Amino acid sequence: MSFVTSLYEKHLMQQISKYPIPEHVSLVISETDLLYADGFRKLKDYVTWCRQTGIKMTSIYIEVLDTEETLKSQIIEKLTSKLTEYLTKAPGTIGYQIFGENGELQSERKGKDFQIYISVGFGGRKEVTKAVRDILEKVKEGKIKASEISEKDIESRLTVKHEPDLFIRSGGKHLSDFLIWQSIYSEYYFTDVDWRSIRKLDIIRIIRDFQKRQRRFGK
Amino acid sequence: MSFVTSLYEKHLMQQISKYPIPEHVSLVISETDLLYADGFRKLKDYVTWCRQTGIKMTSIYIEVLDTEETLKSQIIEKLTSKLTEYLTKAPGTIGYQIFGENGELQSERKGKDFQIYISVGFGGRKEVTKAVRDILEKVKEGKIKASEISEKDIESRLTVKHEPDLFIRSGGKHLSDFLIWQSIYSEYYFTDVDWRSIRKLDIIRIIRDFQKRQRRFGK
Repeated sequence: MSFVTSLYEKHLMQQISKYPIPEHVSLVISETDLLYADGFRKLKDYVTWCRQTGIKMTSIYIEVLDTEETLKSQIIEKLTSKLTEYLTKAPGTIGYQIFGENGELQSERKGKDFQIYISVGFGGRKEVTKAVRDILEKVKEGKIKASEISEKDIESRLTVKHEPDLFIRSGGKHLSDFLIWQSIYSEYYFTDVDWRSIRKLDIIRIIRDFQKRQRRFGK
Repeated sequence: MSFVTSLYEKHLMQQISKYPIPEHVSLVISETDLLYADGFRKLKDYVTWCRQTGIKMTSIYIEVLDTEETLKSQIIEKLTSKLTEYLTKAPGTIGYQIFGENGELQSERKGKDFQIYISVGFGGRKEVTKAVRDILEKVKEGKIKASEISEKDIESRLTVKHEPDLFIRSGGKHLSDFLIWQSIYSEYYFTDVDWRSIRKLDIIRIIRDFQKRQRRFGK
């Protein structure tokens, strides 16, 4: 990192520290972003940057290409086990939950100063469908009345309970099948920078933009 | 419209006619966008522009400010009746469906060359919840087995059946509670231009950008 970049980064860090930092940041990347040589190091960097800027929670969706079923499952399995291995080594104050293709909790740890949710190919449509199956069970058991089903009943059964303040979509401007229910009030950031080239500076800039939007909104 | 703008518009119309036009375009505006003096004329213009460029279908979400319940219902009722009045006068080849706050169909007409869905304050969370209640009815009647509920069962009960190709969000960069299920593959366009100032040129530009993204995607 050049001297100038480093100075600029410090300057921006000071700027963003003056205003509220988004608490929960969501990120969508693809399986290839992780599978290339430095993918996991970039993920580690990203988590470090989040913590340095004061973000408390990140939810990460790893989009898995719709390919032949067996291959897809193998990729998801490999990613899930590598992610678990990687997160086990992370500082103990970092908590995490990793969800597999069908929303089963693959591994977790409680943490006290930062929380990571990782979803490997488990998108929002599947998440909502799972909640519906769950509601049906309760109705069958007579614990909920069908006529009283409300948005709250779906909401309370979703895997990720926290609505993101900020949603980062790197390389690509279409939406994604992640947190479709939780993200309706999120601020959206498309960045042309692809995931492999993303720097701390980019994250800080996104936070600064987020704060500007919030302040305009308050007027 | 100046002579230069008119020439530029013609030039762009020729350009976009060379590539596939998005079939279904979604639009999110707010109730104040409609309630100001020229709101309905702008809506009429927008529909005309859609038809001129070759778009086949538009779904429009009128976000209604979360205010005191009685006032909110009054606003929704007024908007719904004005929209019905307005659409009744539209050319007969234009079909439409207007949905009220709780997803009830307020009025509709079949059309053969263009289709409009308007949702007044009926967002995606409500839409999904309504689908769930519907599924529960079928389960109670023994027509569906609870264990077999799939994404398709939710999908087939949504109010709007068509996934948008392109999603236009004018003035504002947060997502919205509209078509949360249907829009996961949509291309998203935030425009800084607010709804009242939007011109045909803006719509053509958005289509041109959409086509560029599609072509890059194909490579």
